[in-house]
Amino acid sequence: MDSDNKVWKVINGGVAAPKGFYAVGVQAGVKSRDKYDVALVFSQVQAQAAGVYTRNLVKAHPLYLTQHHLQNGLAQAIVINSGNANACVGASGDQAALAMAQVVAMFLAVHVEDVLVASTGVIGVEMPIDRVLNGIRAASAELLGDVVKGIREPKEISEDGAHRAALAIMTTDTTVKERALELPCQGGVIRLGGMAKGSGMIHPNMGTMLGFLTTDANVAASELQRILREAVDESFNMVTVDGDTSTNDMVLVLANGASGLMLSGEDLLNFEKMVKMMCVELAQDIARDGEGASKFMEVTVNGAKTKEDARKIARSICGSSLVKTALFGEDANWGRIFTAAGYAGAEFNPDKVDILLGDLIVALAGRGVEFSEEKAKEILGFKDVHISLNLHIGEEQATAWGCDLTHEYVTINGSYRT
Amino acid sequence: MDSDNKVWKVINGGVAAPKGFYAVGVQAGVKSRDKYDVALVFSQVQAQAAGVYTRNLVKAHPLYLTQHHLQNGLAQAIVINSGNANACVGASGDQAALAMAQVVAMFLAVHVEDVLVASTGVIGVEMPIDRVLNGIRAASAELLGDVVKGIREPKEISEDGAHRAALAIMTTDTTVKERALELPCQGGVIRLGGMAKGSGMIHPNMGTMLGFLTTDANVAASELQRILREAVDESFNMVTVDGDTSTNDMVLVLANGASGLMLSGEDLLNFEKMVKMMCVELAQDIARDGEGASKFMEVTVNGAKTKEDARKIARSICGSSLVKTALFGEDANWGRIFTAAGYAGAEFNPDKVDILLGDLIVALAGRGVEFSEEKAKEILGFKDVHISLNLHIGEEQATAWGCDLTHEYVTINGSYRT
Repeated sequence: MDSDNKVWKVINGGVAAPKGFYAVGVQAGVKSRDKYDVALVFSQVQAQAAGVYTRNLVKAHPLYLTQHHLQNGLAQAIVINSGNANACVGASGDQAALAMAQVVAMFLAVHVEDVLVASTGVIGVEMPIDRVLNGIRAASAELLGDVVKGIREPKEISEDGAHRAALAIMTTDTTVKERALELPCQGGVIRLGGMAKGSGMIHPNMGTMLGFLTTDANVAASELQRILREAVDESFNMVTVDGDTSTNDMVLVLANGASGLMLSGEDLLNFEKMVKMMCVELAQDIARDGEGASKFMEVTVNGAKTKEDARKIARSICGSSLVKTALFGEDANWGRIFTAAGYAGAEFNPDKVDILLGDLIVALAGRGVEFSEEKAKEILGFKDVHISLNLHIGEEQATAWGCDLTHEYVTINGSYRT
Repeated sequence: MDSDNKVWKVINGGVAAPKGFYAVGVQAGVKSRDKYDVALVFSQVQAQAAGVYTRNLVKAHPLYLTQHHLQNGLAQAIVINSGNANACVGASGDQAALAMAQVVAMFLAVHVEDVLVASTGVIGVEMPIDRVLNGIRAASAELLGDVVKGIREPKEISEDGAHRAALAIMTTDTTVKERALELPCQGGVIRLGGMAKGSGMIHPNMGTMLGFLTTDANVAASELQRILREAVDESFNMVTVDGDTSTNDMVLVLANGASGLMLSGEDLLNFEKMVKMMCVELAQDIARDGEGASKFMEVTVNGAKTKEDARKIARSICGSSLVKTALFGEDANWGRIFTAAGYAGAEFNPDKVDILLGDLIVALAGRGVEFSEEKAKEILGFKDVHISLNLHIGEEQATAWGCDLTHEYVTINGSYRT
């Protein structure tokens, strides 16, 4: 998938690109010095809002608060910290999440129920709440400065702020994940901004990472929830790095209607497609930046009986340690791909399955064929590797994204906490 | 668990320890030179037999044959090769498996339906069937020599043969996994022999590895099937190395009744316990020898509402890449343990969970407690690490075994096929 052929175009500004949105990131000292770790996203007006959350039974404290605050489908600000997950610390964790919302509400003069809270980092350690609240104070002051200056065009300062916000939600991420798109519509343009963090503990079930979208489209919360759910199912939920579903993950979207446009007909369809595209691109960014990853893997399953079967198989292959190490070793071990399909819990006939590495057929109708090892080596030598299967029993299709399993992954995760 | 306190005792002889059983291993050239790769296990008389198999939808060719031959609950010989999985190669794979059984039947003068076949190794490559059949010929000749010599006591030659058989089923295993136990009974003794291979592509669902048990007990096939199923569920199915369920795995048991004893009452109960114990010990051997493993992990979940919930959580923790890398890094990151419990798909209340590393409490009632990092470091520094959870919502318990995820695992699996 590629934005270039679409009706929308790529623009700058990240989550602050849509009209009426502002964002900043500050260094609050939760992570080591010189690292951004508190982010604030703000809409000048109350926005329609929707969210999807981890399915892990063990949930971080801010998740409960955010879910609670989103019950009425309205929000105006999101505060995020990295460096501490605010998970599994008891009542003080709930208090810390609430304090973050309260302080944002106070400084930005919004309802506390309109503040959403997210955290990412180490689990089971008390939040250094004083530092976080100080960070929020600094972020709020800067953000209000931006708002007061009314600097919407040119947006240099806000662009920088959004970029720092995207930096502030990173943990072991090595690349900033931010995007912005602009859709020409009847009577004007709609903008969509997004940022995400991923890296480790990444596995389907939302259950994956943090993602934040902003838009100046005018969309009701219920409609927004449907659009987000569908987009997440085909994007963030199709990424796997290590099979671990985190306690903290969520994707939120705020739509403040500041564009002044009502979406309908083709514009609405295009908007939905644009949201899905942004989610897919952010999900790909996450897979590409998987902890220790040296290669990006895209797995497409065609010809499945049901969409869910296609999804299960694509994710199972992306999640297989043996496929991931073979990818790292540039070894055309298609038997491992087939094996991972076999234990995915999906229905297919093994005797009908074709497997391709890039455009190279390695198995036909469930059995290996002679192929050029040289050509296979060349394909596996690229940084992006495409694996595809055709099950030949239906019309459904799905794509998942992942990365290889490397020495570096082991090194990073052998000493994350200490 | 430990054999020492039990009514049975540890003896030598592996799968050839029970009366009337013989085993050999030969070098047939399927793997590299100087490696054993064809094993033969033989009972002088037709034996009652049972088996459990991988649940992978993609099954290797010998599995179909073995399942077919075991329909009548009878068997007399098992032939196993390593170096080639005989999987996903089409009709020639079925022919190769059948040829192996036919040649064994011919040389050992048994019914072809009484020969069971197993393979392990690379998937999707044609079997070098000439070499395998030659190996079977050599193995049969040696085995018949043993039988003719009638050398049951002392059993030096047969012990050596059983050891070579255990060597011949290894792939990336670094240790031989063979065991033998003797149970004093009313009127004599019952012996039980066993061997297994594991290492990689190890994950619950039988779905794990190869295991072969022999006994001179007199047990009907249907009873044997029940005993094996229960033992496997608490042993081989509770081991995970990398989450990959293989196409080839099976555990078989042959009971030839050569002890002349009918089991009943306490003897029967002890026999069942002994079978379970052997399966647990072989399963532990497999976890301990996981590919690239430097540490062995035992995870016990207590206080669960159902046995299945306890099993799910124990396996989920053992299978988590993040727990495994933390173990490798000797990092007391209990948040990852809790997280893996949370996505296991089992029912529990996060606010009630206690977590211990060895005897060190790291979390109580779902939240972290202050603990000595020094003591944690010491516990995680041992080669065997015990993790336990108490869910405090029921009486059920389960234990799973696994290993750490190391640089060596990545190295081994980055270049297995080539």
